Amino acid sequence: MGAKQRLVVIGGDAAGMSAASQARRMKSEDELDITAFERGRFSSFSACGIPYWVGGDVPERDQLIARTPEEHRRRGIDLRMRTEVTEIDLDRQCVRTRDLEEPGAEERWHGFDHLVIATGARPVRPPLPGMDAPGVHGIQTLDDGQALLDTLQKEEIRNAVVIGAGYIGVEMAEALRHRGAEVTVLERDDQPMSTLDPDMGALVHEAMNGMGIRTVARAAATEVLTGPDGRVRAVATEGGGEYRADVVVLGLGVRPETSLAKDAGLPLGESGGLLTDLAMRVRGHENVWAGGDCVEVLDLVSGRTRHIALGTHANKHGQVIGRNVGGGVATFPGVVGTAVSKVCDLEIARTGLLEKQAREVGLQYVTAKIESTSRAGYYPGAALMTVKMLAEKRTGRLLGVQIVGREGAGKRVDVAAVALTAGMTVEQMTALDLGYAPPFSPVWDPVLVAARKATSAVAAAG
Amino acid sequence: MGAKQRLVVIGGDAAGMSAASQARRMKSEDELDITAFERGRFSSFSACGIPYWVGGDVPERDQLIARTPEEHRRRGIDLRMRTEVTEIDLDRQCVRTRDLEEPGAEERWHGFDHLVIATGARPVRPPLPGMDAPGVHGIQTLDDGQALLDTLQKEEIRNAVVIGAGYIGVEMAEALRHRGAEVTVLERDDQPMSTLDPDMGALVHEAMNGMGIRTVARAAATEVLTGPDGRVRAVATEGGGEYRADVVVLGLGVRPETSLAKDAGLPLGESGGLLTDLAMRVRGHENVWAGGDCVEVLDLVSGRTRHIALGTHANKHGQVIGRNVGGGVATFPGVVGTAVSKVCDLEIARTGLLEKQAREVGLQYVTAKIESTSRAGYYPGAALMTVKMLAEKRTGRLLGVQIVGREGAGKRVDVAAVALTAGMTVEQMTALDLGYAPPFSPVWDPVLVAARKATSAVAAAG
Repeated sequence: MGAKQRLVVIGGDAAGMSAASQARRMKSEDELDITAFERGRFSSFSACGIPYWVGGDVPERDQLIARTPEEHRRRGIDLRMRTEVTEIDLDRQCVRTRDLEEPGAEERWHGFDHLVIATGARPVRPPLPGMDAPGVHGIQTLDDGQALLDTLQKEEIRNAVVIGAGYIGVEMAEALRHRGAEVTVLERDDQPMSTLDPDMGALVHEAMNGMGIRTVARAAATEVLTGPDGRVRAVATEGGGEYRADVVVLGLGVRPETSLAKDAGLPLGESGGLLTDLAMRVRGHENVWAGGDCVEVLDLVSGRTRHIALGTHANKHGQVIGRNVGGGVATFPGVVGTAVSKVCDLEIARTGLLEKQAREVGLQYVTAKIESTSRAGYYPGAALMTVKMLAEKRTGRLLGVQIVGREGAGKRVDVAAVALTAGMTVEQMTALDLGYAPPFSPVWDPVLVAARKATSAVAAAG
Repeated sequence: MGAKQRLVVIGGDAAGMSAASQARRMKSEDELDITAFERGRFSSFSACGIPYWVGGDVPERDQLIARTPEEHRRRGIDLRMRTEVTEIDLDRQCVRTRDLEEPGAEERWHGFDHLVIATGARPVRPPLPGMDAPGVHGIQTLDDGQALLDTLQKEEIRNAVVIGAGYIGVEMAEALRHRGAEVTVLERDDQPMSTLDPDMGALVHEAMNGMGIRTVARAAATEVLTGPDGRVRAVATEGGGEYRADVVVLGLGVRPETSLAKDAGLPLGESGGLLTDLAMRVRGHENVWAGGDCVEVLDLVSGRTRHIALGTHANKHGQVIGRNVGGGVATFPGVVGTAVSKVCDLEIARTGLLEKQAREVGLQYVTAKIESTSRAGYYPGAALMTVKMLAEKRTGRLLGVQIVGREGAGKRVDVAAVALTAGMTVEQMTALDLGYAPPFSPVWDPVLVAARKATSAVAAAG
């Protein structure tokens, strides 16, 4: 028997525990020790599911937990909960940990042969006056979700304000609406859905208003105002706006949690995420791996690295890391920037580049926008959707797709995601053999209609 | 002004009228005369929609008509309804026509510079005793649909038998069920859904039985039995089976309608469909084009030509032909064999090759089959689906996908259709950046779960 290897994982959520589980599948306990440290109280939970639990669609918190600490331990992973890693010493190949349940306890060092950094992300929390008042909630962990639910259940909530109109922002708007609140979403930019082009974001804005959710653009929050009881009572915005709020939810997105990695001198990208190679190895470090919300990923369309916090990427990263640590071969080639979300019955999807992103990387493009339906026009339940497509000038290469519609709209973006991955032109897309039957699609699928129009636009632009 | 060109189109449905319309967009009436002959009473109707009209989901026949003869005429297409083409003379470049409304009238010749053959398909009608009895219905045209509806409305229908369990068969089974009949579907093969592998077809069988539709495999119809009034009363099958029937619907699929083309000496493939080049020009004939249900198309996965009657292909063919006739450039590269259908709330989809088809063309493959859900497991409405994937041995190239499930299952096949078109391996597919959010997908999309399992199977097979 050779020397037993030691794998240490920092972070007990999607990326970290996927890596640990995959490594365990490949190496027995005789060959590999696996120790994972998680500072929180939950392992392997679905952060993306929190809005649906808060909104009441998912009744029980524990439904969001994919695998408990006990389940991981039964699979031969020594998962230490409420244990924070406070330092990474790359020269000595060890990490220092602190037991959060015993504040006075001595910190301990743990040696590793392989290290996986899966420290996740932290929500953006602007340093505004009143941000720490009772009634202001971030949404990142199950504890955050529980705190918000407690507020919703204990206090009389008439007005809710969501600061930020990204994915979490709009999903939380729906959740608060489900709980009976009057909801206002404040967005600092001049468009209500910054993850889409302004013209497509405007459709979301309009639809949300139609659902009774007020959206306000160009409304940067400047202060959380509190009442005599110290609780939140309103949010003030630039230019003197004031929005009544019995509860405030932050939906401003997240940043990579990489302070440990930074202190250890590991390479970070422009967004502050760890930079890895295609095997998810931290650049320049043979035995240090990183994945999930703390890394930057290669955007295959723009050729740049980006920070995209998404559970589906984290799980893939973990798989790749675990396979490599276990002696196998695996790579994560990159992303194309796909995202879908839902607010009430509105489905919102994008993949590839927005106009602004295309310009930033020096791409010249044409756009095409079409309206079509989710099913044959004559079939019951056929719902309108708008599809916008970006194609590179001259080459006609697909650059991006955005879709806003109702049932059946969102997952259509997957067709474009695969086409982007394959480097297809919009003209090639017009011939795609997509599933057709009246309950599923018009005879020309909306994505194909957009591809046809984009093809004409490419030809016309010369 | 140069010599005015003459385009003659045989067939006034999807392929023919798409070709005519696209050609008209590219050439004015001063440059191009367009004459189209249709022997039926309707133009540009959705044959795929007939089951939903018969079933009552689509209330009005005319909703299935995309464009009326008058609308075509207003767009500068001389569409002659109820006019049958009885001969094509390629040497003299003309077609002979007969006016079906005036049986005694003289036949006339019409010259062409370009000819488009879009004669469609005819339903398979086995030469069994009793097939012409009242109560036996084929389903191809709107007239067929109306005749069946008349039967359903005038007669007391308790028992219905559908002969054949292909797409039309199962869709008609649902339609008849909607109309209150007890429905039995007879399939001659030893599997109830011959468009899928037997193991996947068995899932459809099971689900249909659960919905109160009886399916019987190995039940080749031998005779339609009639009562004293001459109307159908039962269907007899090989081995002595007898199934009571107040109405019989034929769902045995279609064959290319190419008798005119054959008489003219045009090249036909193994299935009897016209053979074209990539521009949809009939092979070896510079100015004769063909598209829609009367042609064979290149299957990009197997490299063979196949006959696939599907409105979405017909529309694409028409576009390509019209563009070429109009002096532009367009090709139809081929299909990957995608099809989706629905019976009650069951969604059935496939793309690429079945096991049998892979073997027929000499491919060695592995299979992977998984169960997953349409949404995150904890999200309301998450529905089970089964995904089966075929991958080539050694290369790992994707060969086919079949999906059986409920809401959200069917159109997932599009991801595989694009991956097939791009020639991806199943391992490449595992990294696809598909849309993820709890209302749309588990964190690993079912197609990706299948791709992971198929990747392992490829590795294990060596």
